[in-house]
Amino acid sequence: MSSPRKRLSPDLRRAQLLDIGSRLFAERPYEDVWIEEVADLAGVSRGLMYHYFSSKRDFFAEIIRVESARILEMTAPDTSRPITEQVAAGLDAYIGYVLAHEHGIRAVNRGAMSGDTEIQAMVTAELGVQQDRILAALPPEIREDEVLRTALRGWVSFVRAVCLDWMDRRTISEEDVRALCLRALEGLLRL
Amino acid sequence: MSSPRKRLSPDLRRAQLLDIGSRLFAERPYEDVWIEEVADLAGVSRGLMYHYFSSKRDFFAEIIRVESARILEMTAPDTSRPITEQVAAGLDAYIGYVLAHEHGIRAVNRGAMSGDTEIQAMVTAELGVQQDRILAALPPEIREDEVLRTALRGWVSFVRAVCLDWMDRRTISEEDVRALCLRALEGLLRL
Repeated sequence: MSSPRKRLSPDLRRAQLLDIGSRLFAERPYEDVWIEEVADLAGVSRGLMYHYFSSKRDFFAEIIRVESARILEMTAPDTSRPITEQVAAGLDAYIGYVLAHEHGIRAVNRGAMSGDTEIQAMVTAELGVQQDRILAALPPEIREDEVLRTALRGWVSFVRAVCLDWMDRRTISEEDVRALCLRALEGLLRL
Repeated sequence: MSSPRKRLSPDLRRAQLLDIGSRLFAERPYEDVWIEEVADLAGVSRGLMYHYFSSKRDFFAEIIRVESARILEMTAPDTSRPITEQVAAGLDAYIGYVLAHEHGIRAVNRGAMSGDTEIQAMVTAELGVQQDRILAALPPEIREDEVLRTALRGWVSFVRAVCLDWMDRRTISEEDVRALCLRALEGLLRL
């Protein structure tokens, strides 16, 4: 279905196209999304769509870049607070993002499994930033601990897997997800 | 480099081709592997290669199927033993597989990120079997706990992420990996 064409500033138009794309890529495999459909849903010409994004692959890459940056911005820690509060606040923000932008998380997950090396690298980089934030909040003498570093790498994968499973099944509460992830981290930090 | 052509039974030839493919897909992105190179490395004609596998995609799918089945077979639990021993033995077998068949794990990981829905489903199914094995070993009254079920889904992702990070960095010992994964699970089971 086409919506009537509206005048939007280039920034808003771009954001609108990315948002529509994020929802479509969240719902369907990459090969089942057509850039023409995005244009139709936005009520713009296909020519305008290609003015903003040179190809479907570039469009998808840009969605993953924007969603990853949004996750990192929303979960940015207040480094003046103690580590436990930083992690709890970051986790709350991440769960809030999962609830508010389920399609964004699903699109990013699709990116992680896309087989496109550059797109995978963006997703891996986001997990790496989350790992580094926790490491940076730890006392220097344990920050260098390689087992702990590995444990945190595992934990960020744990959180993502738990949130994806939660969205698919919806059998536990938001508070359960939060408590589960925090308890897993506490167990790992108690080395 | 071609090796001299040897007579092999069809089963052995097939296994040889799959093993060569697993090593190549572990080292390089999917698009950089050529089925002709596999034939050359095995010292067989390209026609014979296509006799065994109808396309590169089918060849890759078969590698993932065989490697996943091998992981599940090697880590199969002895259900007569207590759960902690079953899990510890399964984890030992998994780590042993990672060490002995690093290329197999990497090829499976490539499959998880391949963007091919059917291949991804095989990899997800393997993680699901690992999760179900632990659930099946738990007492019935806690087996139905949805939080625990979610925790185990997260844990199998944790173990895979930790093992991939370990192979990439090699900064911790096999014993560290084993202890880290077991401690994470113990923390989660203490609900």
